[in-house]
Amino acid sequence: MVRVKVIGAGGYGGVGIVELLLRHPSARIAGLYDIADIGKPFSALYPHLGGFCDMEIRDVAREGESEPADVAFLATPDGVGQQLAPQLVARGTRVVDYSGDFRFNTIPDYREYATRIGRNPVHGAPELLTQSVYGLTELYRDQIAEAPVVGNPGCFAVSIILGFAPALEAGLVAPDSLIADSKTGVSGAGKTPKTQFHYPAQYDNMYAYKMTGHQHVIEVEQQLSHIAGQRLELTFTPQVVPVCRGIMSCLYGALVRDTPFDEVWEIYRRYYRDSRFVRVLDKGVAGQNSMVRGSNFCALWVNVDPRTRRLTVVSHLDNLMKGQAGSALQNMNVMFGLDETVGLDRPGVYP
Amino acid sequence: MVRVKVIGAGGYGGVGIVELLLRHPSARIAGLYDIADIGKPFSALYPHLGGFCDMEIRDVAREGESEPADVAFLATPDGVGQQLAPQLVARGTRVVDYSGDFRFNTIPDYREYATRIGRNPVHGAPELLTQSVYGLTELYRDQIAEAPVVGNPGCFAVSIILGFAPALEAGLVAPDSLIADSKTGVSGAGKTPKTQFHYPAQYDNMYAYKMTGHQHVIEVEQQLSHIAGQRLELTFTPQVVPVCRGIMSCLYGALVRDTPFDEVWEIYRRYYRDSRFVRVLDKGVAGQNSMVRGSNFCALWVNVDPRTRRLTVVSHLDNLMKGQAGSALQNMNVMFGLDETVGLDRPGVYP
Amino acid sequence: MVRVKVIGAGGYGGVGIVELLLRHPSARIAGLYDIADIGKPFSALYPHLGGFCDMEIRDVAREGESEPADVAFLATPDGVGQQLAPQLVARGTRVVDYSGDFRFNTIPDYREYATRIGRNPVHGAPELLTQSVYGLTELYRDQIAEAPVVGNPGCFAVSIILGFAPALEAGLVAPDSLIADSKTGVSGAGKTPKTQFHYPAQYDNMYAYKMTGHQHVIEVEQQLSHIAGQRLELTFTPQVVPVCRGIMSCLYGALVRDTPFDEVWEIYRRYYRDSRFVRVLDKGVAGQNSMVRGSNFCALWVNVDPRTRRLTVVSHLDNLMKGQAGSALQNMNVMFGLDETVGLDRPGVYP
Amino acid sequence: MVRVKVIGAGGYGGVGIVELLLRHPSARIAGLYDIADIGKPFSALYPHLGGFCDMEIRDVAREGESEPADVAFLATPDGVGQQLAPQLVARGTRVVDYSGDFRFNTIPDYREYATRIGRNPVHGAPELLTQSVYGLTELYRDQIAEAPVVGNPGCFAVSIILGFAPALEAGLVAPDSLIADSKTGVSGAGKTPKTQFHYPAQYDNMYAYKMTGHQHVIEVEQQLSHIAGQRLELTFTPQVVPVCRGIMSCLYGALVRDTPFDEVWEIYRRYYRDSRFVRVLDKGVAGQNSMVRGSNFCALWVNVDPRTRRLTVVSHLDNLMKGQAGSALQNMNVMFGLDETVGLDRPGVYP
Repeated sequence: MVRVKVIGAGGYGGVGIVELLLRHPSARIAGLYDIADIGKPFSALYPHLGGFCDMEIRDVAREGESEPADVAFLATPDGVGQQLAPQLVARGTRVVDYSGDFRFNTIPDYREYATRIGRNPVHGAPELLTQSVYGLTELYRDQIAEAPVVGNPGCFAVSIILGFAPALEAGLVAPDSLIADSKTGVSGAGKTPKTQFHYPAQYDNMYAYKMTGHQHVIEVEQQLSHIAGQRLELTFTPQVVPVCRGIMSCLYGALVRDTPFDEVWEIYRRYYRDSRFVRVLDKGVAGQNSMVRGSNFCALWVNVDPRTRRLTVVSHLDNLMKGQAGSALQNMNVMFGLDETVGLDRPGVYP
Repeated sequence: MVRVKVIGAGGYGGVGIVELLLRHPSARIAGLYDIADIGKPFSALYPHLGGFCDMEIRDVAREGESEPADVAFLATPDGVGQQLAPQLVARGTRVVDYSGDFRFNTIPDYREYATRIGRNPVHGAPELLTQSVYGLTELYRDQIAEAPVVGNPGCFAVSIILGFAPALEAGLVAPDSLIADSKTGVSGAGKTPKTQFHYPAQYDNMYAYKMTGHQHVIEVEQQLSHIAGQRLELTFTPQVVPVCRGIMSCLYGALVRDTPFDEVWEIYRRYYRDSRFVRVLDKGVAGQNSMVRGSNFCALWVNVDPRTRRLTVVSHLDNLMKGQAGSALQNMNVMFGLDETVGLDRPGVYP
Repeated sequence: MVRVKVIGAGGYGGVGIVELLLRHPSARIAGLYDIADIGKPFSALYPHLGGFCDMEIRDVAREGESEPADVAFLATPDGVGQQLAPQLVARGTRVVDYSGDFRFNTIPDYREYATRIGRNPVHGAPELLTQSVYGLTELYRDQIAEAPVVGNPGCFAVSIILGFAPALEAGLVAPDSLIADSKTGVSGAGKTPKTQFHYPAQYDNMYAYKMTGHQHVIEVEQQLSHIAGQRLELTFTPQVVPVCRGIMSCLYGALVRDTPFDEVWEIYRRYYRDSRFVRVLDKGVAGQNSMVRGSNFCALWVNVDPRTRRLTVVSHLDNLMKGQAGSALQNMNVMFGLDETVGLDRPGVYP
Repeated sequence: MVRVKVIGAGGYGGVGIVELLLRHPSARIAGLYDIADIGKPFSALYPHLGGFCDMEIRDVAREGESEPADVAFLATPDGVGQQLAPQLVARGTRVVDYSGDFRFNTIPDYREYATRIGRNPVHGAPELLTQSVYGLTELYRDQIAEAPVVGNPGCFAVSIILGFAPALEAGLVAPDSLIADSKTGVSGAGKTPKTQFHYPAQYDNMYAYKMTGHQHVIEVEQQLSHIAGQRLELTFTPQVVPVCRGIMSCLYGALVRDTPFDEVWEIYRRYYRDSRFVRVLDKGVAGQNSMVRGSNFCALWVNVDPRTRRLTVVSHLDNLMKGQAGSALQNMNVMFGLDETVGLDRPGVYP
């Protein structure tokens, strides 16, 4: 049994991994930590878990006093993981961090990220940074298996990278032509109530934001540049729509030559043939959010418009599953030599 | 392994039981039947089940040509179950019927029901009717265990009967004082699109309907009369609110004497002490739909207003789970000697 | 032209009255005041009003430095109106207050209210209190016309009082039998984001709250007692459903004798024959929220259940219109000798 | 007073124009026509209009028996307008048609459109076709003023054309680089219930559709080609999100040279300086659906990403107003020499 601690358990990222761990046959929750709600049973925050997870939330500052776990999920904001990871790793606990702290695995890359988002460019745990791995399982399985620290990817980033990767690797699209038009459900913004997410403000509303500065674009560019073998920049338009769970990214790229749909589709199928959680939809089948909601699957709907010679991939996933806790658990499975689908291979509920 | 057929598989009642059966450790789907979509894979109707249930839908008219199953779920409208059940039972298949066909287990009771809803008062399978049992597991466990046919209860009825039963049995409330004000999510109306459930018509809308003639009131009155030991009639106001899954029934009864809250609460706790799926909420905890959504639990929030000397119970459940497929599976478990919680004892997903 | 100030302009109660005033042919906004967002154009808070209301929000503390208006709407919480009203009235400004400060028009009644909700029982402007009038136009037209201060009613209260008034006045129902089961949209909670109103928490959710202590019940009981000619108490269950605008109250009362529906219906029609904004629905027509959303109308759907001998009235209104700003403007019209429908007599928009 | 008939009154396009006409100071509804619900009062279909529009719906087949009107709105599907327009025009009634029948104003253009969408390429009223004008008021005011028949634009098309027009006219973007990623609310699909718009299917769901064949793209390409002075084709991705009213189009174009944001913004402001209903948002102000919902405004949020040298315009409008009935009324105003803003110049309601 893998013993697991969840740090930052109180937010949506925390409850997401707790729900998954409760059903995982080979993992056991060893402790839930946070900086608030200390001493409360977890089910007081999430009443649907009453009788399933009534464990008390403990003070993260006193985590070190307890038995080390095998792995810790850090469902914490930027800046926290780099402070906590060293002591966890030193005591034998591997780390899956949800923030940007370990998504950039070299010192220069992290410096660039931190600078662009206006944070201190000096990483707090540089030696771990260079050993950490970007946690998109489909791309880095082997390295994740060995990594002491995994930087779990951003939810938008997962939907975009999975959607563009096969086309870029195969050289189908021009690297400087990429556009990602991404719609997220509101749960992607987390649990803290804010003016724009107040029900009366958000229902029947939709809007774009951070038109040129969303932090996710940086990891996307880095990963896609790596695949393309050249530095690329993409246009990214994050948007919020009145959905709870879900991301739909419409991904556009200019085909470098006339490529028939069948060829493109084959390339996508082949690329993900060993990736259980990425579904390249059958020809003639359209994607929709309800296909993936509540599950760890990413559905890719591949389209070619011969008139404009563009590839359009519509990428659907559940931002709290494949976009967050699901990917995190998938990474844990890989880190501990389990089949990556354990505890995850099931559909959502409909309607 | 219990071999299961689902008849009327294509609707919400069908997909609900299929989702549950896919995760049940001791059941196996032996066949999916319907009168439409014959020959299509089930996942063509419900794409979230792609890779999980691609079994073809077969023509219900030819069900008899296949190997009999141990049990059949009839997710079919009034009138169908009484036609199909005899041949199923004759071939050794026990039946859980979702409609009103077997919710009234004597010929006079059925006749009254059928008359009130304007159907033929002559039941099509009278001998089975008298052997059938009302499928509210919490009330009829022992009889369900032996029954050849179980009449799965209506979703509103479950929420109301579970909420009033302890008070009536204990004689706390006046039988002629009962009011059930019930709000349902739209999935309760089934899968067929209708004018009032069209998204633009239903979003931000709410309304009551069938103010004096909803068919569920009849089974509620029959069951509650039985518990009260006297004939009673209740006022029932079904309402639709823009929720997908969920029923919230506010149940009102006049206390026959001043009863302190603690005493009422103890009566409810005791009544359901052996019923895993009914949660009488702890003192000080309020109910809400998100507590039960996606799960088989019914949450009862018990309140006493000493000023008006009324009991108010707020009953929450998921209409497609405890209100339908979840209860059906719970009944199947009981019918086949399994623990009633097998394949059902898990929370929903939040948010 | 009636010159109008709005105090507490920044909240939903403020923007509601501003929207109405912008279309009112005989009123003019003389100033918008608040304690926050001072100096910002109103349209910065409410961008849909860009070009329609770009007036700067002023500091309420400096209201006295400006020219007095004819009327001030105090869209402010309990406790503020009793502080501000004296100086406003002294300078010739009549007041429509949205809070509970002037809904109880005698010192003992206010004391009882304040005590029950845990506020200081000593009113800050007792002499105005006794001159103030409860602002349900349909009940107090004549007194409102003369009143220096009007206590605009609570949104739930409007829906309940209008629904019960005819039956009580006619002695149709037993005063001790009343139950109000009221569902509100989320905008009724105001503009400030809170955990339970966060989109992911509120979408697909529904719940009851304050089962025995909602402050609105007090004014309802006072008004209905007055109509019934005897002290009465009612059971009130406020609930929140995922709707933005709207209240649906299901109102129950025991008929004191068998009264045919037609007689009840006639009583309701007669009672409201001169009240443009209360629609007693035609026989055979069911109510729904979309009928009244965005308008100042209250729709009453009257039902009699002869089996249980109960009256059930389903009352629909828009909580931000007839439940708040619409009633406020209607009161203003009456106070200034205008037809009460001026600037209000239009339907909402559908869908 | 302009006398107006509405044909196809029963759908959302019909009720939209009726709502607007009821508030128009210089127009009068002379008749409502449809092929269904003949003889019913309009308010039976749309109860929120009870007391405001109780006029009976008449049989469109007998329209010719009544007095001709000055203008008829044909809220009818493709193919109907070309049949009805000749007789209407012959009797002196000018026509605003909502369908594709008069959006292509030459015989070859119509033939191409009809062929691409699989309809009969021979137009039923060729002589009117060549006199008809594309009804995007901002582009064709002068011609609309004189036209016997106006082809009201598609809702997606309005949002896209208004968003790209200034950039194309100024030669800012490469004509072959255009992408429109458009999200619509569900009301855009009309009033008829369908499987995918059933509340349980549509709530919390989002999806793209008609990835390469939406009929709106044809009129967009024609109009934009005209502006660009060269034939262009664009990639268009229509999507549905769980919103009732609203379109948000994210429009992408490659800048032909490095153009600073300020210059782009000035070009947009200048282009629409005389167009009341197009709001080029102030610098620093982000767009959102709630800004325009319920109003006839289109909000354009102009952005330049210097990293990728792309222009991104986010275009917001209400699909039933500026996207349909609002534009139709604006056209009527122009056709009858009224100020184009009459009866339209007001904000929506919030929240």
